[in-house]
Amino acid sequence: MKIISGGVCAAKGFKASGVHCGIRKNRTKKDLALIFSEKVANAAAVYTTNLVKGAPLLVTKKHLENGKAQAVICNSGNANTCNADGVEIAEKMSALMADALNISADNMVVASTGVIGQPLNLEPIKSGIPALVQGLSKDGGDAAAEGIMTTDTVKKEIAVEFEIGGKVCKIGGIAKGSGMIHPNMATMLVFITTDAAISSAMLQKALSTDIADTFNMVSVDGDTSTNDMVTVLANGMAENAEITADGEDFKAFMKALNTVTVYLCKMIAGDGEGATKLLECKVSGAKNTQTAKTVAKSVICSSLLKAAMFGADANWGRVLCAIGYSGADVDVSKVDVSFKSIKGTIDVCKNGAGIEFSEEKAKEILLEKEIEIIISVGSGEGSATAWGCDLTYDYVKINGDYRT
Amino acid sequence: MKIISGGVCAAKGFKASGVHCGIRKNRTKKDLALIFSEKVANAAAVYTTNLVKGAPLLVTKKHLENGKAQAVICNSGNANTCNADGVEIAEKMSALMADALNISADNMVVASTGVIGQPLNLEPIKSGIPALVQGLSKDGGDAAAEGIMTTDTVKKEIAVEFEIGGKVCKIGGIAKGSGMIHPNMATMLVFITTDAAISSAMLQKALSTDIADTFNMVSVDGDTSTNDMVTVLANGMAENAEITADGEDFKAFMKALNTVTVYLCKMIAGDGEGATKLLECKVSGAKNTQTAKTVAKSVICSSLLKAAMFGADANWGRVLCAIGYSGADVDVSKVDVSFKSIKGTIDVCKNGAGIEFSEEKAKEILLEKEIEIIISVGSGEGSATAWGCDLTYDYVKINGDYRT
Repeated sequence: MKIISGGVCAAKGFKASGVHCGIRKNRTKKDLALIFSEKVANAAAVYTTNLVKGAPLLVTKKHLENGKAQAVICNSGNANTCNADGVEIAEKMSALMADALNISADNMVVASTGVIGQPLNLEPIKSGIPALVQGLSKDGGDAAAEGIMTTDTVKKEIAVEFEIGGKVCKIGGIAKGSGMIHPNMATMLVFITTDAAISSAMLQKALSTDIADTFNMVSVDGDTSTNDMVTVLANGMAENAEITADGEDFKAFMKALNTVTVYLCKMIAGDGEGATKLLECKVSGAKNTQTAKTVAKSVICSSLLKAAMFGADANWGRVLCAIGYSGADVDVSKVDVSFKSIKGTIDVCKNGAGIEFSEEKAKEILLEKEIEIIISVGSGEGSATAWGCDLTYDYVKINGDYRT
Repeated sequence: MKIISGGVCAAKGFKASGVHCGIRKNRTKKDLALIFSEKVANAAAVYTTNLVKGAPLLVTKKHLENGKAQAVICNSGNANTCNADGVEIAEKMSALMADALNISADNMVVASTGVIGQPLNLEPIKSGIPALVQGLSKDGGDAAAEGIMTTDTVKKEIAVEFEIGGKVCKIGGIAKGSGMIHPNMATMLVFITTDAAISSAMLQKALSTDIADTFNMVSVDGDTSTNDMVTVLANGMAENAEITADGEDFKAFMKALNTVTVYLCKMIAGDGEGATKLLECKVSGAKNTQTAKTVAKSVICSSLLKAAMFGADANWGRVLCAIGYSGADVDVSKVDVSFKSIKGTIDVCKNGAGIEFSEEKAKEILLEKEIEIIISVGSGEGSATAWGCDLTYDYVKINGDYRT
């Protein structure tokens, strides 16, 4: 397996594009993206667990009931959520795009991201669609990745190449996600494309299994969005024997998918609203995986720890505190904590109590951009990783005046 | 019932004092507090639910097994938590204070608040105890309230006078709490004193009942501290017939206690770390109280909403979002939301969808210091109130360099 360029267009038969159509006021920011597969693809998706669901999710869910899709349209700048006419608008947006592509509206994935509760005007979308279709190309992955950004500061895309039964397959993805992100099912917008041949059922199984250890372990601010989803389109153009059951081929696919999703998770966490650091919390020694996950999530979500990391302060007491209130069944007198970065590793707590350490060395480690918080909670077999970011002045700034 | 002065010394037989003994480096900040009752009092307490518990809590819990206490010693600047010798130190601190007061060490409540995981040096406490005893007076409530402050910016104290069976009773309290505060049992340090005569069992019942609607409904940052507790000492010097069962007298006591605790809750929330606003989230129409509480807590804990309130942005979509992921069983299509302050009330969402409103008026309302977020989730009977604060640059600043 190797990392390749091309993002969401790396796989055979996929093209993409992105334009500014006028939903966002800033004309330099793209606000409409399209991903298109030459052939109808098998499709799978996971959706936010928030009871308040964006209208586009409801429409997409209906369209994917048959496990098929051929294109994705996504706008940024407006979430089309909590609007009385939301579903109607999402259906129209979907139909307009399908018409222009000359495909069935039933094969459209439709998504929106941005402000909640403001009517979504179809006019800019209608006027942007011709340029979107015209712009479709194998080089359009970047433009599509830009089109779905909101408060994101960087594009998030990746692709990998791997083999199934001697056939070269590719899988690539783009993601947006910066705020309103918390581990609870699909928690951001992620579009993944692959030319691997895999049945809709196995594609859904692969995705649902994968997200439990990837996107569900990312938290920026503890707020589970109303609009987030992850979709995968597999058009089979790599011509491997279709994966229809567990086995070596499925394993190879899962591994490639996981490489894409873990990369996107780290991109999303590291680009959390206002973030200056990517935090990776690795828990081991728990009695089972669920316990390890509970601990890792609690630590990565602690506002106090996140603020301490912003200040490069080795305040491990906040790690212990977050473990203690996590609800996980752990013996706090057996907890060890270390901080790690490219500058080295420093042990700060053994058996639930502080140990002497060099504050100077700790500072040096914590001033880096990527920090690992390594926690051992005993001698069990359960382990888990969660990703997050520090809490900064800019998070407050971004969210204090996002809407107005 | 009327509000009176005197705080924790308002009730008959209670004296208090506070000094700077040297645990905190800043000599202008008191760091040691004492509350003393002339007579041994009936006592009740509730403790943090965090699995990591400060050593003083373990010692206090043991001391209160017989439902009796006569004095409280509390230091700020060091939490005496996650230290190998923590219990030993807390026992010694308790014994030293008891000796100086010539009371039984078993009748001591001992508490600590501050940094976790740094050994607590007994020397400053030892040297501060004589001044603490000498300073005991009916006017010492202020000094005690100061002695327990950490990042608090204001003293938190209140007292009320009420009648039980024709006898004038008083109840007063002091509190500290600013960060690491989240609704989960006792979530800050609160010391309440009363001269009402009430059995230990009924005192515990009163406290445990009350906190479910008061301190457990306060959140500053979602972090449940390791060291927090609420204690009540009742010395019976008001000479009412001792309350030993439910009835009118118990109701009168509960009402007075609730006045004290709600006041302290609002003080704590409004003085949340870095806060510029007190947020009060009032939920009604839920199918039961628990559902209403779940909704109120979820909204008050949303980092996104808290940041929006800091920016005086009527971003009600974030209210809907927080209701949606709360886990509460509500029909989101029946949710109404309004914002209220002394400048008026503005409706922003009806039946789960946005309605037109004046952004100018909303801004005027939200620029005030005390904001009510009023939510109706249907036509049930369940209601609840939660208290919190906005998320500001200063929260990040305070917690980015608290320890170093």
